[in-house]
Amino acid sequence: MLRTHTCGELTAANIDQQVTLCGWIQKIRNLGGMTFIDLRDRYGITQLAFNSETNAALQAQAQSFGREWVLQAEGTVKERYSKNDKIPTGEIEIIVDKVNVLNESLTPPFTIEDESDGGDELRMKYRYLDLRRNPVKNNLLLRHRLGIEIRNYMSNLGFLEIETPFLIRSTPEGARDFVVPSRMNRGQFYALPQSPQSFKQLLMMSGYDRYFQIVRCFRDEDLRADRQPEFTQIDCEMSFVEQEDILQIFEGLIKHIFKKVKNIEYGPFERMTYEKAMNLYGSDKPDARFGMTFVELNDCLKHRDFKVFNEAELVVGITAKGCGNYTRKQLDALTDFVKRPQVGASGLVYILCHEDGTFKSSVDKFYSQDDLKAVAAKCEAEPGDLILIMAGPRVKTQKQLCELRLEMGNRLGLRKAGEYKPLWVIDFPLLEWDEETQRYYAMHHPFTAPKPEHDAMLETNPGAVNANAYDLVINGNEIGGGSIRIHDRKLQQRMFKALGFTEEQANNQFGFLLNAFQYGCPPHGGIAFGFDRLCAVLSDADSIRDFIAFPKNNAGRDVMLDAPWEISQAQLDELGLQLKK
Amino acid sequence: MLRTHTCGELTAANIDQQVTLCGWIQKIRNLGGMTFIDLRDRYGITQLAFNSETNAALQAQAQSFGREWVLQAEGTVKERYSKNDKIPTGEIEIIVDKVNVLNESLTPPFTIEDESDGGDELRMKYRYLDLRRNPVKNNLLLRHRLGIEIRNYMSNLGFLEIETPFLIRSTPEGARDFVVPSRMNRGQFYALPQSPQSFKQLLMMSGYDRYFQIVRCFRDEDLRADRQPEFTQIDCEMSFVEQEDILQIFEGLIKHIFKKVKNIEYGPFERMTYEKAMNLYGSDKPDARFGMTFVELNDCLKHRDFKVFNEAELVVGITAKGCGNYTRKQLDALTDFVKRPQVGASGLVYILCHEDGTFKSSVDKFYSQDDLKAVAAKCEAEPGDLILIMAGPRVKTQKQLCELRLEMGNRLGLRKAGEYKPLWVIDFPLLEWDEETQRYYAMHHPFTAPKPEHDAMLETNPGAVNANAYDLVINGNEIGGGSIRIHDRKLQQRMFKALGFTEEQANNQFGFLLNAFQYGCPPHGGIAFGFDRLCAVLSDADSIRDFIAFPKNNAGRDVMLDAPWEISQAQLDELGLQLKK
Repeated sequence: MLRTHTCGELTAANIDQQVTLCGWIQKIRNLGGMTFIDLRDRYGITQLAFNSETNAALQAQAQSFGREWVLQAEGTVKERYSKNDKIPTGEIEIIVDKVNVLNESLTPPFTIEDESDGGDELRMKYRYLDLRRNPVKNNLLLRHRLGIEIRNYMSNLGFLEIETPFLIRSTPEGARDFVVPSRMNRGQFYALPQSPQSFKQLLMMSGYDRYFQIVRCFRDEDLRADRQPEFTQIDCEMSFVEQEDILQIFEGLIKHIFKKVKNIEYGPFERMTYEKAMNLYGSDKPDARFGMTFVELNDCLKHRDFKVFNEAELVVGITAKGCGNYTRKQLDALTDFVKRPQVGASGLVYILCHEDGTFKSSVDKFYSQDDLKAVAAKCEAEPGDLILIMAGPRVKTQKQLCELRLEMGNRLGLRKAGEYKPLWVIDFPLLEWDEETQRYYAMHHPFTAPKPEHDAMLETNPGAVNANAYDLVINGNEIGGGSIRIHDRKLQQRMFKALGFTEEQANNQFGFLLNAFQYGCPPHGGIAFGFDRLCAVLSDADSIRDFIAFPKNNAGRDVMLDAPWEISQAQLDELGLQLKK
Repeated sequence: MLRTHTCGELTAANIDQQVTLCGWIQKIRNLGGMTFIDLRDRYGITQLAFNSETNAALQAQAQSFGREWVLQAEGTVKERYSKNDKIPTGEIEIIVDKVNVLNESLTPPFTIEDESDGGDELRMKYRYLDLRRNPVKNNLLLRHRLGIEIRNYMSNLGFLEIETPFLIRSTPEGARDFVVPSRMNRGQFYALPQSPQSFKQLLMMSGYDRYFQIVRCFRDEDLRADRQPEFTQIDCEMSFVEQEDILQIFEGLIKHIFKKVKNIEYGPFERMTYEKAMNLYGSDKPDARFGMTFVELNDCLKHRDFKVFNEAELVVGITAKGCGNYTRKQLDALTDFVKRPQVGASGLVYILCHEDGTFKSSVDKFYSQDDLKAVAAKCEAEPGDLILIMAGPRVKTQKQLCELRLEMGNRLGLRKAGEYKPLWVIDFPLLEWDEETQRYYAMHHPFTAPKPEHDAMLETNPGAVNANAYDLVINGNEIGGGSIRIHDRKLQQRMFKALGFTEEQANNQFGFLLNAFQYGCPPHGGIAFGFDRLCAVLSDADSIRDFIAFPKNNAGRDVMLDAPWEISQAQLDELGLQLKK
């Protein structure tokens, strides 16, 4: 080894030891006869000291170094005169005898500090320098630790990690596949998996019983902020279980992670039906760190001459505690917020509940003080509170009010970092109707089992069928989702039919799976967690990008590599492809 | 849970307990009034008993079941009359009260037994059934266990598992890339990584210091037997180290694995130079479980009138102990073996060392008994031994004789299962000359550092430069390989030049790496192990295929999925591609 110690481990206990350290120059300070260098490695920072009285030539050399040079420094550990109690090595410094420049460095294009002066694109281009910064490093350290914890936890419960293939077959159902042209089978393509769904079900059919895998998945979607074309799942499946077993096991995993990483212990997670989540939070992934839940106001507000409410499928409000003194400007800002295209509402109605028991609303023209009082009572609003009301088609309005609720949560500081509210959302609908294509789509995926008691409705009233499907939600983020799967070939065929597949299409796309059902498929179910998102949520971070060592930007490009890029004509020829003009 | 116990855990200690088991029917035996069913799951087999006297209807039902049906059976654990000491549950059986058919099964297309009657293609097509067989299951269990052991060992040494991207940029150097057309960047392609080489080096530049990853890699090569287009590496890299440090750390990993999996403890692994390996074994991955090493015979056999030897660059032999009594037929078989196109030799010379001290050779016409005696002395052959000699161009002949040596090792039972001989091959040449393209190629890869003492020869005598490169070899298999990397930008540029890259080509393909070198690159090196191969070697298996849950066949096809396959015109259009007629 080129070093005897790291830059993070020397303390007063090592005083007078002869040591060799390697690392990068974080900072050089010249103080007359002394030069101090902060030497940095993955483990910390240690101060190197060069003294002109004892070795003038060496001090002069040290003064010539620059930021981010790589040094090997040999010397003696000594107690510092002025100690630094902010770092573990702050009691000591190294009186350097000998220094070996392992490599020089240009001045980096941005500062390698916790708060860098580099913009997003610049830091992405020089990702290898950005990765030197502590905040990014700590994210990757957390990710490694989580990976180890999860693998050992699962393995100790008898789950086997089994690798599934990456070069598979494209299926049009679901999101768009990335495809890989085959040279050996001209004109044919592999697809990269969106998830190992089929394979983990086949593994259950093979009797593996408890499977998991931390695995890369791929989706060629139009990227929204904070989507990545490749992402990592903790993919899990079990046989001979019911929904309750899966919830228990994986609630255990999440509790274990919180205990290990955050030292937080949880009791049983709340369980909320999809219907309740939509009605109270307007979302199937509610941020339950704070209340401000929805109150349906159809009864209270549809009896006057206000057309907007009267014609609305849903009139629904939330109560913002202590905001009854909002100014006109503040209220206008909220109206502007809901009118932004990202939210898309046409307007917002407010009721200010004054301390004196009177009300001021934006619809005073239509509603009496008694009307407003009744609304306040229904909303459990007190003097000093603010009621915000939206109206329109049910689901659309719920989603819009959800955005407003989260915005109010932010404004009022109710979405606290360091506070986590994990909950299960259960009883999802099996199918979702799509207006555009005039067909049902699977809400989770086509392998999700309907609730047995709803089975008969699959043909008669498909939209009313609920599924044995569940999501794990933390602070407004879907961390994981899964379901009990169909294990009966006939039911799977009925499901494909409900999704509008002809028998031929079903066989063409999922024939291997339908075949496999014939050879003794056990009851099974599973779940998949978003590993990137889990890391981000545990770090109270909004973006998954900083938990990925080499992420892509929002256009799906790796700006460091400059990928994707053209390939040669020879490569195209070998693949039997040509680019369309 | 649908079960209280698995089929592998009940013993005499559980007698009289009421239990519920789930599993597949391995076998049904009808013995008059009794029906016995062997119920199988991942953990073992338990015997279910149905008695016509206590429950005739249930017994009749049991008789109607078939192989591979999935049952949930409830009953009482009882001591067996005739015990089976071959399985852990052999002392007991379950007297079944209630049985629930969870799923039926068609008769499987081959038997789910340790020795199946199914051919290769059939078992690949129904891989989910093949995976039910114990030998395959045990392979995947081993693989899981190895993964956990390796991750914990590496993590405990401070190595971080960091995931690197799968959608990267294609580089023409090395093997052929699989490419992925980008829809969002029309006409451009990602490539799937052949290894995370560049990324792990960038991570060293980022200061991560000790990295590893168990990671899928991809190579679009013309498949030879036992190659897979996707395979898994244990990829590792360290900073501030020299070759010796890497050999020590990873020798430790391999020893740990052998101790844990095989309960074998090893002393220091032998180290052999590339030159010695080629001269003694004709291979850079010698099977050192047995001797039969090469003896160069140029001195002894070039002085007579035998043109074949006189014109050969190398005359070289091996001694097969105790084969001096080989018949003409046996010797002809060996000649046929070396003449097979896979070996490609033009002939084979033998010398039988008779017990009476005389010699019989296929070249008696040219050599006297004294000549042959001198050869025997040089080969340390004794009466009763057989000397086999080949001649021709040096490297080609070494490789041919290597094949013959391994064949003789097989015939003589010297390549024993359960015996392992790990060794390091070191001091590889940096470059290999390719006659066809008339240029040098990197023997490991273009980032491998020349030995410092050979640095100056990079321009003057490139072929003579050795590298700080090393392979870990077990029983004739390359298990891992790595090198100390170049960490100096100028040296890397010289290396690209030695490989015939123009500056523009180097910048175009590896610009991001050359740039990164400018910002403080530490000395570093690493190694990558073939995970599939490691699993196979530890199981004394020849083929990696059975250590992969869902492998491709030799044409790169997944015959279960029928992938690759055509994609739709809409998909092609979106990607801006058309197929060439």
